[in-house]
Amino acid sequence: MLAEFLLANVRPNGSAPKDVLIRNGLIAEISGHQPDRDDAETVVVDGGGLLMLPGFVDAHTHLDKNLLGMPWYRSNAGSDIVELIENGRKLRRALGINAERQSGEQIELSVVNGTTNIRTHVDIDTECGLSSLEGVMAARSRYRRIVDIEIVAFPQSGLLIRQGTLELMNQAMREGADVVGGLDPSEIDRDPKGHLDTIFGMAERYGKPVDIHLHEPGSLGAFAVELIIERTNALSMAGQVTISHAFCLGMLDQRSVARLGEGLAKAGVHLMTKGGASGAAPPVMELTDMGVNLCSGSGGVRDTFSPFGNADMLDRAAIVAQRNDFRREEDIGLALSLCTYGGARMMGIPSYGIDVGCSATFVLVPGETAAEAVASGPRRRGVYRRGVLVAKDGAILSA
Amino acid sequence: MLAEFLLANVRPNGSAPKDVLIRNGLIAEISGHQPDRDDAETVVVDGGGLLMLPGFVDAHTHLDKNLLGMPWYRSNAGSDIVELIENGRKLRRALGINAERQSGEQIELSVVNGTTNIRTHVDIDTECGLSSLEGVMAARSRYRRIVDIEIVAFPQSGLLIRQGTLELMNQAMREGADVVGGLDPSEIDRDPKGHLDTIFGMAERYGKPVDIHLHEPGSLGAFAVELIIERTNALSMAGQVTISHAFCLGMLDQRSVARLGEGLAKAGVHLMTKGGASGAAPPVMELTDMGVNLCSGSGGVRDTFSPFGNADMLDRAAIVAQRNDFRREEDIGLALSLCTYGGARMMGIPSYGIDVGCSATFVLVPGETAAEAVASGPRRRGVYRRGVLVAKDGAILSA
Repeated sequence: MLAEFLLANVRPNGSAPKDVLIRNGLIAEISGHQPDRDDAETVVVDGGGLLMLPGFVDAHTHLDKNLLGMPWYRSNAGSDIVELIENGRKLRRALGINAERQSGEQIELSVVNGTTNIRTHVDIDTECGLSSLEGVMAARSRYRRIVDIEIVAFPQSGLLIRQGTLELMNQAMREGADVVGGLDPSEIDRDPKGHLDTIFGMAERYGKPVDIHLHEPGSLGAFAVELIIERTNALSMAGQVTISHAFCLGMLDQRSVARLGEGLAKAGVHLMTKGGASGAAPPVMELTDMGVNLCSGSGGVRDTFSPFGNADMLDRAAIVAQRNDFRREEDIGLALSLCTYGGARMMGIPSYGIDVGCSATFVLVPGETAAEAVASGPRRRGVYRRGVLVAKDGAILSA
Repeated sequence: MLAEFLLANVRPNGSAPKDVLIRNGLIAEISGHQPDRDDAETVVVDGGGLLMLPGFVDAHTHLDKNLLGMPWYRSNAGSDIVELIENGRKLRRALGINAERQSGEQIELSVVNGTTNIRTHVDIDTECGLSSLEGVMAARSRYRRIVDIEIVAFPQSGLLIRQGTLELMNQAMREGADVVGGLDPSEIDRDPKGHLDTIFGMAERYGKPVDIHLHEPGSLGAFAVELIIERTNALSMAGQVTISHAFCLGMLDQRSVARLGEGLAKAGVHLMTKGGASGAAPPVMELTDMGVNLCSGSGGVRDTFSPFGNADMLDRAAIVAQRNDFRREEDIGLALSLCTYGGARMMGIPSYGIDVGCSATFVLVPGETAAEAVASGPRRRGVYRRGVLVAKDGAILSA
């Protein structure tokens, strides 16, 4: 690593051209671009007028179960969530999905696409035990020089409904999982109070955040949101709780959304939305205006649940924008902010952003503005992490 | 052009490897792949086991108003359709959007992406007169060796509501437009009967098909669908009428959709859906099951209406699939068929498909099955039109 260099002629978040001095992996100075700078003591890297965006944050994915690099899987499973879960568990064995290997596949793809921070949900169940967790932890360790990974212990097949899972979840937290995961407290576990009390109890015991997959529709989903808000308030866990998907917020009348949005904002509960097109999705603009922090993620990437997904958060911003009918410059910027600052706030990433004192963790892409980069999805990308160029134009440079 | 060659080792629509003999621009024979074929008289082109799909059909776009290759346009316009139309007309002048030049930009992008047939809607209004039509016609002529283009005379700013437009529409039809276009008969023209009678009257007079943009919601849109079915039946225009978008079919109860779907199928009215995520969209599976022919298109590509879009019909198939929550192999195949066979049926493309006697117009892409190609969107593509390789891996080879 160069202890100090000047990245000349880059445009942070679409600004006028700047020169950015990077020292010991941090942004030390930002000044107007001087084309004829003559400073023999500083190494100068030409930024070529590229757009400079903070490192992308994939706030929700499943590193352990993608099929990247494996033979094409011809799916014949339906769309029902329980059917997809059963199918996924069965195929993990049948296809020989190795969590460590597959995590590596997706991490490399994510990093070349500009992702520098990932929160991944890892299956904990009575069939795989902690083997997926161990695989993802091994991959995390292997790739620690190019990406930061946070692991959610995720009871994908149900928590209370499957005897033995709770013990495994506790073990997972003791062995190093960073976040307690939950899932559809009514539809899967059939006991919303029991499920959420258990999860929040674990969060308290281990001093860890909570992240709950909530696919439940309409007022059933709304009820779960209420229960989550109540527990977040009771345990003073502001900023430590995330609801992932929350499809229900795209199904309710405006008044109910306003009521829940206000509750989420006050309680400091984050929302993660993929902006998926196949069903309802939380309205990003309205919830942002209410003060809710939203983030986004890849979700499953080419797995047995769905063959789509490319672990590209710039594409994800385009998906979120289009799902929310964003066409204006600043609205598309809002969609991108879910994939950058929103995710950073959710995960509490220290020194995040493009300001003096921040970590020199950023992506260089062609584009006049952030919105152009989102709309174009350029393949040419330079990815810096803590002052080191870790990927360029599709290739990992240092791992 | 080679009068005859053997394209060896390709997999038509994902089949086992075949050898395809191409003679005078047509598919003359398809046989099982023989690796050690020894036939000194035939030129053999190695297909490398690639997937062979019929040429993509972009059944709905607007070649005249994209901003490809122009400076990034920072939009501040809202999502209201009337506001977008006004904004688009104003900016056509202000930005100096040249229909011929911009058509060329998009045609080249479309062709490298594998599109071999395009239906484009061209603005006819009292400000631009026929200049956009003339520009698109000039581009069509320039690119006639690599793509087939059908032109819809499209009263984007309203037909009856803007005096002088009807005369221009008639002139456009006389000067060579192929299809009579219409637009939101109630919401824009304020006279559903008057608008549709006028358009169908023109279709009768010029012996041309009709293609109507229908953004109208719920029962207002349903009423327009009924009026279109009635006129199609009365004028015996089965197969000659297309409704584009038809968002209303994604907003109605199942019974109303079934009633309208049956009417559309019986009348032989085609439906074009982009599968857009920002609002309602016709349910592809249900309508297909009712016997309705559906096709798809790029719609606007990076224009003043929306900065998104890449004129890639393989991406479009992925969008349609995800919008309709398709995950199964055959369902994703259905989404792709809107971008191939469905569009070909709609436009009445002769000799379309990968069968003996068909035009040798196809795309070679990596992928085990069509669904894998849709989910992966590989950039490596070889595009053949009537036996000639017109584009390869992102570059136009002959124009």
